[in-house]
Amino acid sequence: MPKIVDHEKRRVLLAEAAWRVIRRVGIDGVSVRNVAEEAGMSLGSLRHYFTTQSELLAFSMRLVSDRVYERITKTSWSGDPRQDMENIIAELVPLDDERLAECEVWMAFAGKAVADPSLKSLNREIYDSLRNLFRMFIATLAEKGMMKPGVNEELEAEKLFALVDGLVVHGVICPDEVTRERIAAVVSDYFDHLLQPGPS
Amino acid sequence: MPKIVDHEKRRVLLAEAAWRVIRRVGIDGVSVRNVAEEAGMSLGSLRHYFTTQSELLAFSMRLVSDRVYERITKTSWSGDPRQDMENIIAELVPLDDERLAECEVWMAFAGKAVADPSLKSLNREIYDSLRNLFRMFIATLAEKGMMKPGVNEELEAEKLFALVDGLVVHGVICPDEVTRERIAAVVSDYFDHLLQPGPS
Repeated sequence: MPKIVDHEKRRVLLAEAAWRVIRRVGIDGVSVRNVAEEAGMSLGSLRHYFTTQSELLAFSMRLVSDRVYERITKTSWSGDPRQDMENIIAELVPLDDERLAECEVWMAFAGKAVADPSLKSLNREIYDSLRNLFRMFIATLAEKGMMKPGVNEELEAEKLFALVDGLVVHGVICPDEVTRERIAAVVSDYFDHLLQPGPS
Repeated sequence: MPKIVDHEKRRVLLAEAAWRVIRRVGIDGVSVRNVAEEAGMSLGSLRHYFTTQSELLAFSMRLVSDRVYERITKTSWSGDPRQDMENIIAELVPLDDERLAECEVWMAFAGKAVADPSLKSLNREIYDSLRNLFRMFIATLAEKGMMKPGVNEELEAEKLFALVDGLVVHGVICPDEVTRERIAAVVSDYFDHLLQPGPS
């Protein structure tokens, strides 16, 4: 067993080294060679884990996605659906340096994916699971009768999902203006207008 | 005068050739050499216009931005602010193949800009002028008393801007689901909830 743990740990260390390279020089600076250097590992050892730049990028992006899901799973439920949703959304947007790094990696990755079929399909996979999360949010609010009348659930789920991804993009492009406080305020304002006033 | 026109026309032809290369192989496939080839121009002639990849990318992105603004300026005003805003937003999102190409170039560019200071500052410049447009939208609706009570104008402008950019990202990642009809419906639904019911 310890060997497997070490193996996984090493993959994570390598992916983290790849993130640092991406943030410093851009996603196209991520080569098997300079990630090995950044991680303080020989090229031979690294090739045990990844053989191509594309595999390495896909793994780094998957790690971002896994970490986000892990944090979401660990969210302690307050019993107030609105509060729980705001907490989960806080795991997706650049509310601290770790999340900002993840958002930057995602943006670099999504930009690269525009013209790379294998990265594109992974990006789509991540999109699909997030879209399902937002659909579940809106379905839960509807089920509990918390929303104001006249909401089209399908359009509302896309609206909230697009709002959150737009805030991610703006938080990366313009971190001095689209600050963590501003992002939290916009999300809170969204729920204020969506939900019935109530003891929340 | 004809000479100046030709010069400008040639720059536009080159930038368009660069877009085709970006869409086909990704933004990092844009080299001075392969754009010359795509445009059917000699490397020497092209170097009259651009000398580095970064200059070429910045010019291509500026051209996307200029075209969008040109289309916005040419929008015929209906006299109904909501309709006018929906028309202008339609110029920003992937509602047809030309706009989808522009959105893809922007996403590839924004991803690349994460780690390139000169592209980053151009991306920020584009962000700033669009943010001002969305602030003007919300200020106009407020001034005309068209919005429901309780809207915080600053947060609302960021919300609408983020919604639109999120729809751009989703329209690029997931064009089969986030179709032009879906995007138009989400934007329309947004205004339905923001505005007082009335003879629109």
